[in-house]
Amino acid sequence: MRHTLREIANHIGAELAGDDASVEISGVASLGTAAGKHLVFIEDAKLLAQALASKAGAIIVPVSVEVNGAAKPLLRAKSPRLAFARAAALLAEPPEHQLGVHPSAVVHKDAKLGLGVSVGPHAVVQRAANIGARSRVGANASIGAGVSLGSQCEIAPNVTIYSGTKLGDRVVVHAGVVLGSDGFGFVRDEQGKYEKFPQIGTLVIGNDVEIGANCTIDRGALESTVIGNGTKLDNQVHIGHNVRIGDNVVIAAQTGISGSTVIGNNVIVGGQVGIGDHVIIEDGVILGSGSGVLTGKIVRGAGVVHWGIPAKPLKQHLKELATISRLAQKSSDKKQKD
Amino acid sequence: MRHTLREIANHIGAELAGDDASVEISGVASLGTAAGKHLVFIEDAKLLAQALASKAGAIIVPVSVEVNGAAKPLLRAKSPRLAFARAAALLAEPPEHQLGVHPSAVVHKDAKLGLGVSVGPHAVVQRAANIGARSRVGANASIGAGVSLGSQCEIAPNVTIYSGTKLGDRVVVHAGVVLGSDGFGFVRDEQGKYEKFPQIGTLVIGNDVEIGANCTIDRGALESTVIGNGTKLDNQVHIGHNVRIGDNVVIAAQTGISGSTVIGNNVIVGGQVGIGDHVIIEDGVILGSGSGVLTGKIVRGAGVVHWGIPAKPLKQHLKELATISRLAQKSSDKKQKD
Amino acid sequence: MRHTLREIANHIGAELAGDDASVEISGVASLGTAAGKHLVFIEDAKLLAQALASKAGAIIVPVSVEVNGAAKPLLRAKSPRLAFARAAALLAEPPEHQLGVHPSAVVHKDAKLGLGVSVGPHAVVQRAANIGARSRVGANASIGAGVSLGSQCEIAPNVTIYSGTKLGDRVVVHAGVVLGSDGFGFVRDEQGKYEKFPQIGTLVIGNDVEIGANCTIDRGALESTVIGNGTKLDNQVHIGHNVRIGDNVVIAAQTGISGSTVIGNNVIVGGQVGIGDHVIIEDGVILGSGSGVLTGKIVRGAGVVHWGIPAKPLKQHLKELATISRLAQKSSDKKQKD
Repeated sequence: MRHTLREIANHIGAELAGDDASVEISGVASLGTAAGKHLVFIEDAKLLAQALASKAGAIIVPVSVEVNGAAKPLLRAKSPRLAFARAAALLAEPPEHQLGVHPSAVVHKDAKLGLGVSVGPHAVVQRAANIGARSRVGANASIGAGVSLGSQCEIAPNVTIYSGTKLGDRVVVHAGVVLGSDGFGFVRDEQGKYEKFPQIGTLVIGNDVEIGANCTIDRGALESTVIGNGTKLDNQVHIGHNVRIGDNVVIAAQTGISGSTVIGNNVIVGGQVGIGDHVIIEDGVILGSGSGVLTGKIVRGAGVVHWGIPAKPLKQHLKELATISRLAQKSSDKKQKD
Repeated sequence: MRHTLREIANHIGAELAGDDASVEISGVASLGTAAGKHLVFIEDAKLLAQALASKAGAIIVPVSVEVNGAAKPLLRAKSPRLAFARAAALLAEPPEHQLGVHPSAVVHKDAKLGLGVSVGPHAVVQRAANIGARSRVGANASIGAGVSLGSQCEIAPNVTIYSGTKLGDRVVVHAGVVLGSDGFGFVRDEQGKYEKFPQIGTLVIGNDVEIGANCTIDRGALESTVIGNGTKLDNQVHIGHNVRIGDNVVIAAQTGISGSTVIGNNVIVGGQVGIGDHVIIEDGVILGSGSGVLTGKIVRGAGVVHWGIPAKPLKQHLKELATISRLAQKSSDKKQKD
Repeated sequence: MRHTLREIANHIGAELAGDDASVEISGVASLGTAAGKHLVFIEDAKLLAQALASKAGAIIVPVSVEVNGAAKPLLRAKSPRLAFARAAALLAEPPEHQLGVHPSAVVHKDAKLGLGVSVGPHAVVQRAANIGARSRVGANASIGAGVSLGSQCEIAPNVTIYSGTKLGDRVVVHAGVVLGSDGFGFVRDEQGKYEKFPQIGTLVIGNDVEIGANCTIDRGALESTVIGNGTKLDNQVHIGHNVRIGDNVVIAAQTGISGSTVIGNNVIVGGQVGIGDHVIIEDGVILGSGSGVLTGKIVRGAGVVHWGIPAKPLKQHLKELATISRLAQKSSDKKQKD
C-alpha cells in the first residue's frame, strides 16, 4: 500500500528533511534487495554510504545522522528499527483472503461470526464457536466447540483449537499450532497402570499474542492455562497445563514449560530452555538458550541472565565453565609432563 | 453426567459415611473453581478446612480423615487422587461428536467402519483403512490406506496416520500428531550424496496409549516401530524408526528417541531427554529431564534416577555438579585473595 | 515392482555369479522378515550363514564374500547398504495416489498444475501456485498463494506451505511440516511492548531435499531462508529466518537453528542440537547430539566432531568430562577417608 514520505514520517514519528514529502514508497526492503520505491533502514551511521549506494527510495537513519544534502530522502528516527517496523506495518498489503466463508468450509449453524470474518477452504468451525470481527481462519483449520476468538485474529492453516479455548484480540497463530489439548496428567493405579487425571480446564490467551508454527499449549487440568497480553512464542514451544505466563514475555523456539509453572511479565526465555513444573520465574528474568530450571525453583532478578543446567546467574555459570576448562587443561599438561 | 454419591463411592471404591448417599454430583473441580454440585479432593488432611470452606458439594479425603460430623459429605479413599480421577471419568459428559460420517468427510469405499464410528468434517479415510467400533476421527484428520484402529480410539483434528499403521483399542491421539512417517535413514553414495534407505516397515501401537499434541513416531525401516500398552507420551515427543517401547512407560514433552533403541516396561522419561540410537533402557529406569543417553549405551536399575549428559546415576551427577561449584568458588576466592 | 536378479544387478552395479539371473525379486526385507521373493543384504561376511538361513530369495554381500557354491543367489557389491537402498528404490511400488485432482480438493483457477500432478482429498492450492509435473499433494495439505513446487515433489497430508515459498525438484515433505511461516522478530517500543519486525522474505528449498514430520522452516525477514540441494532434515527440526544451509547437510531430530546462521556443505548435525543466531558452521563440520553453539561463533574443521555446550572439539570436551568425574570421585574418596 503506497504512502508518501510525509505520511510515513508522520506515522512513525520520524523527522523528514527537505522537499521529498510527496515521494511515494511502496514497501520495505533490506539494503541488498531494495528497489526504487522501497524504504530501508540503518541503525549505525557508518552504514550510510552503503545505504545511499543501494537502490532504495528512502532511508530511515538514526537521529545522529546529518540529513542535509544527502542523495536520497532520509527519515531521522530515535529507534530506526522500531520506525522501520512501523513503516512496514503501514505499507503492508492487506491480506488477500477473501472476505466471508469459503463454500467448502464447514461452519456449525450455532457458531457466531463477526463482521468481516474470513473462513478459508475446508476450515471447520464447530458449535457455539465465536469468531470476532475481521478475524481470519485459514484453510483446514479446526476451531472446536465454544472456542472464542477476539477481533482481528489470524489463524493460519492446519491449526487446531480445542473446545472452550479463549483468545483475545489480534492474536496471530501460525500453522500447525495446537491450542487447548489435554495436559499430561496421569495417576498410577494399584497395578501400576496409568489412569487419566481429568484435563477439563481451559486455555485463555490475551491480546496481541503471537504463537509460532507447531507450538502446543495445553488446557488446564481443573483450572486454566493463561498466556498474558503481548507475549510472543517462537516455533515449537511447548506449554504444559496450568502454566501462567505474564505480559510481554518472549520465548524462543523449542522451549518447554512444564505444568503449573508461573512466569512473570517481561521475561525473556531463550531457545530449547527446559523449565520444570511448579517453577516461578519472576518479572524480567532472562534465561539463556539451552538452560534448565529444576522443578519447584524460583528464579529472581529483573534483567539478570541465568544460564546452564541447572540455571544459575550467568557470571557464576561462566566461572564454572572456565574452571572446568582450566582443570582439564592442567590435568592434560601434567600428563604430558609425566 | 450426574451420579449420586452412592454410585460414585461404589465406582471408585471409597467409603461414604452418613446419610448423603442420594446427593447428586455433576462433575469434578478444583477447590478454587468448585460449585455446589462438584466433587473435589484433598491428599493431605491439613487441607480439610480449606476444602470444607469451598463451594464443593462433596470431598474425597484420605482414609486418615475422620468423617463424622463434617459439614460436607466426605468420601474416604486410599488414594484420593486415583479415586478423583476415576470419579471424573464416571462423571464426564460423553463426547458430543455426531455419530456417523460427516457429509464432508471423504471415506474410501473400501474402508471399513465399525459400529458407532464417528468421522469428523473434512476428515479423510483412505482405501482399506479399518476403524474399530465407537472410534472417533477428528476434523481434517488423514487416515492412510490400510491403517487399522481398534475400538474407542480418539483421533483429534489434523492428525496424520501414514498407511499401514496399526493402533490398539482406546488409543488417544492428540492434534497434529504424525504416526508412521518415514524414518531418517540415508546412505552416502560414491559422490557423498545421500540416497534414501528404504523406510517400508510399520508402526504398531498397543492399547490404552495416549499420544500428546504434535508428537511424531516413525515407521520401522524394514521391521516395526512398537509402542506397548498403556504407554503415555506428552507433547512434541519424537520417536525414531525401529524403536521398541514397553508397557506403562511415560515420556514427558519434547523428548527424542533415536532409531532402534529399546525401552523396557514402566520406564519414566523426563522432558527434553535425548536418547541415542541402539540404546537399551531397562525396566523401571527413571531418566531426569534434560538428560542424554549416548548411542549404544545400556541404562540399568529399576527405580534408579539417571541424570545429566551423559546420563549417570543421580547421586554421581549431583556430586559432579557440587564439585564444579565448589572448585569454581575456590578459584574465585583465591583470585580475590591474590 | 518385480525385477530379475540380472536387472537388479545391472541397476545397482553389483556382480551376480551363477545362473540365477532370471530369478524374480519382488521387494527388499530384513533378515528376520524376508520371504522367498525378497532381497536382503549383509555388510559383514560373518553374517553370511545367518542370511543364508533366512527365507530371503537373494542376498547382497560385500565383495569380500566368495559367491561360488552358495545356497542362495548372491550379489557382490562394494557398498552393500548403498546397493540395497538402490535395489529398494527400483523395486518400490509406485505410489497409489490417484492421478489428477480429487473432487474435494480446492484448487484456485489461477493455480498451474503440471502433467501428472496429484492433489489429494481436501487439499487446498491457492492463487498462482505452481505445482510441477508428477508432484503429489497430500490430503488436507495447504499450498499458499504463489508457492512453486518443482517436479516429482511429495507433499504429505496436513503440510502447510506459506505463500511464495519455492521448492526444487523431488522434494519430500512429511506430514505436519510448516514451510515459510513468519520468523521470530520483534522490536520493543517505548513502553517495552513488542512490535512485529516485518517477516516478508521468502523460503527457497533446493532439489532432493527431505523434510521430516512436523519440522518448521521460517521465511526470511527481508531476504531469504535457503536450504541447499540434497539436504535431509529429520523430524521436528526448527530453522529460523534468514538461515542459509548448504548442500548435502543432514540434521537429526529436534535440532533448532536460530536466525541468520550459515551452515556449509556436508555438515552433519546430531539431534537436539541448538545453534544460536549469526553462527557460521563451516563445510564438513560434525556437531554431536545435544551440543550447543553460541550466538556469533564460527565452527571450523571438516570431519572434526564438536560436542558439548558450548560446543568444542570432541577430544577437549571428553577431557573435561573425564576431569569432572575424576575430581568428583577424589572429593568423595577424601570425604570417606576423613
